Amino acid sequence: MSDPTPDAEPADRIAVDFGDDGLVPAVAQDADSGEVLMLAYVNREALERTRETGRAHYYSRSREELWEKGATSGHTQEVREVRVDCDADTLLYLVDQTGGACHTGHRSCFHRTVDGEHVGERVFDPDVVYE
Amino acid sequence: MSDPTPDAEPADRIAVDFGDDGLVPAVAQDADSGEVLMLAYVNREALERTRETGRAHYYSRSREELWEKGATSGHTQEVREVRVDCDADTLLYLVDQTGGACHTGHRSCFHRTVDGEHVGERVFDPDVVYE
Repeated sequence: MSDPTPDAEPADRIAVDFGDDGLVPAVAQDADSGEVLMLAYVNREALERTRETGRAHYYSRSREELWEKGATSGHTQEVREVRVDCDADTLLYLVDQTGGACHTGHRSCFHRTVDGEHVGERVFDPDVVYE
Repeated sequence: MSDPTPDAEPADRIAVDFGDDGLVPAVAQDADSGEVLMLAYVNREALERTRETGRAHYYSRSREELWEKGATSGHTQEVREVRVDCDADTLLYLVDQTGGACHTGHRSCFHRTVDGEHVGERVFDPDVVYE
């Protein structure tokens, strides 16, 4: 069980601004290729779990729960580094992605241009993975 | 002057889900190096202006206004491609960044780890650019 009242942050650690809703967007980027894989939201607990486990955790706004990426699909993200932007209200996860990040079977959730052109690589069959 | 009632979208164009607040997060990525430069928010008008001009536009939540990246600093972003994620509620701008994306003078806003380590490259002096 995680402690609901975490200790004060170390002096050098950046105080993330989780804002009124307690969430910040987190961009997951492939640490090797640089491909932007997905964007999801993170609350304080999800960030703590990510740091503790080294695996990417997010907060699902629709299901209203903490969520470990790949817990169902096996397509986990090992987090090499967590960066924070200048305003400390956005995170960047540099990850080693197993399989694909997108539930559609694509490596990246950004597999379409806004004009509807398909530009992404499909790496698994979601009907098999999420059967 | 832009038309406040834009025409229906072309058949192949993805209908972006701007949600209740009319905004989606947009990640700007260097089209050549793959470096994630910044995250900002975009409303429908900002997306239209980006497409029309080929230069990145965002919506400032604090100033409550449309904003062209680099209008003050000269550090504009030429947008090569706009991608949309699987849920159509996040954008990815692939850009050619002039100078640096960050108002602190760094190439990327993500120039720190959450542990406070400095990892980014400083490319300009903000006291000169924003004098």
